[in-house]
Amino acid sequence: MSEASLDILGIGNAIVDVLARAEEGFLAARGLTKGAMALIDAAAAEALYAAMGPGIESSGGSAANTCAVAAGLGARVGFLGKVAADALGEVFAHDIRAAGVHFPTPPLRGGAPTARCLILVTPDGQRTMNTYLGACVAFGEADVDPAEVARARVLYLEGYLFDPPAAQAAFRAAARIAHAAGRQVALTLSDPFCVARHRAAFRAFIREQTDILFANEHEILSLYETDDFTAAMERVRQEVAIACLTRSEKGSVILAGGETHHIAAVPTRVVDTTGAGDAYAAGFLAAYTRGLSLPEAGRWGSLCAAEVISHFGARPQQDLRALVGA
Amino acid sequence: MSEASLDILGIGNAIVDVLARAEEGFLAARGLTKGAMALIDAAAAEALYAAMGPGIESSGGSAANTCAVAAGLGARVGFLGKVAADALGEVFAHDIRAAGVHFPTPPLRGGAPTARCLILVTPDGQRTMNTYLGACVAFGEADVDPAEVARARVLYLEGYLFDPPAAQAAFRAAARIAHAAGRQVALTLSDPFCVARHRAAFRAFIREQTDILFANEHEILSLYETDDFTAAMERVRQEVAIACLTRSEKGSVILAGGETHHIAAVPTRVVDTTGAGDAYAAGFLAAYTRGLSLPEAGRWGSLCAAEVISHFGARPQQDLRALVGA
Repeated sequence: MSEASLDILGIGNAIVDVLARAEEGFLAARGLTKGAMALIDAAAAEALYAAMGPGIESSGGSAANTCAVAAGLGARVGFLGKVAADALGEVFAHDIRAAGVHFPTPPLRGGAPTARCLILVTPDGQRTMNTYLGACVAFGEADVDPAEVARARVLYLEGYLFDPPAAQAAFRAAARIAHAAGRQVALTLSDPFCVARHRAAFRAFIREQTDILFANEHEILSLYETDDFTAAMERVRQEVAIACLTRSEKGSVILAGGETHHIAAVPTRVVDTTGAGDAYAAGFLAAYTRGLSLPEAGRWGSLCAAEVISHFGARPQQDLRALVGA
Repeated sequence: MSEASLDILGIGNAIVDVLARAEEGFLAARGLTKGAMALIDAAAAEALYAAMGPGIESSGGSAANTCAVAAGLGARVGFLGKVAADALGEVFAHDIRAAGVHFPTPPLRGGAPTARCLILVTPDGQRTMNTYLGACVAFGEADVDPAEVARARVLYLEGYLFDPPAAQAAFRAAARIAHAAGRQVALTLSDPFCVARHRAAFRAFIREQTDILFANEHEILSLYETDDFTAAMERVRQEVAIACLTRSEKGSVILAGGETHHIAAVPTRVVDTTGAGDAYAAGFLAAYTRGLSLPEAGRWGSLCAAEVISHFGARPQQDLRALVGA
């Protein structure tokens, strides 16, 4: 096994977020499930955008957010994902490269536009996401360069990739390449409804191909169809080498074989929870690939999550290295 | 004179802001003047964008920001300005309409793209702006609907409109229409370097066509080529019916004939000063057109300015009516 020249290679949907404040009644009137991610088509996206308030555009995408945060912590990071050759695609590519992430995937020409996620932030800081996948559905195995996968210590996949069929095939191929090269595969479950849409596939992929799993409480309970967190915890402990289970203000639990580490949340004023899980995974992986202990990796995760929920948007606004003391 | 069906009609450059954090050294290395607005061409905009950090996109434009804030305070507001028929133009049009502002100007087709302002925010919260005017240079007299101007209590013009020649002619025409209809004309000086570029034209327009003037300390000193604030104050008092002079953390001074009102600033943690002056003008004009006193109008201005400098971006994130107690 050769020396890794990347710490993390993320694969995910390449999305530009449009964030706007909304009242609870706005969600209720449109039948939107608060806190969840719903897939919408182009017409629904246009109608929702016309109805929602003034927005702020910022690059997003779950794994892409994680990559940007990890790079801000000094990790060597790459990202694979599909934008279109349009204005929002240029914004996405600029932002992830400006964050220090290697982004080699060519843009889609002549197809669907760059994906966007219309995010409604309610007064409690909770975010409700409505994603038009656009060009992301064109991401496929041809976009997975085996050399990029093989040179990264950890391959990081977002659960949302189970939604576009070609992407699901591509990330399965990437996982096989990573393991053949002696690398580790990390997965985040992304969303309880995404888990419900693809539960059997998630369970098989976790058992067979996942070394490090990230999930929040709702997602892990949905995965195992239980309402008992302890039962879910003991089950996932059997299935992956490392599981990081996040529980909002209750902090997180890291399970690794017989070890159990309880990590405190970092108190902060919640403005917008968009990207909290992504930032936690970034902090964890940046520390982990640097060889730090699991509790220290959890601490980095908590600090990064606290940073991104203290302001509008999923990408960090502070100097993260100073934040974690690295 | 018929009853006004709008409180404020703004005319300004229609711009999408791209905000990114930058270190002092980044400005110095590129010869950028901190705190100022520089006009750049398409090639310079592309080069600067490639070099700058990850951005957040948000609708901007000086008068447009003022219109959005004033609408958030309950004023009846219209805005005239030119975007292109492209993705950023759609963002601008969506955001200003979603803020409750009437925006009738048709987009430019087949010409330059929507204007953008690359804004670098240094660790002290100061913003340095680099504007590519794009479609704004196509704004002309044909875009000034006399009926819109005649139905607004106050016509509000940004000094930046002195830069595109056709826009300068258009806003002079608009001022004549407003006065012929018995309305008032307000002007903001926008930027000390913009004042320096067009000093004689500014002075003449202020003497001949301006009822309400907004300026910060640097701008009023530049206008009269003096370093004595008291002298500048006494001079402007002779030239306009109402002058609102803002002085950052020192608050503002409102002059009206023999009256002088000192208004305190509202203390806040400065995150990003982008839009502070625009928000002050919005608060003042929303209160003024509602018939409130000058000191109360100044208080609304200070509250709105404090709101927008407490976060990233020039458009408000809080419920402004609750903020001012209206």
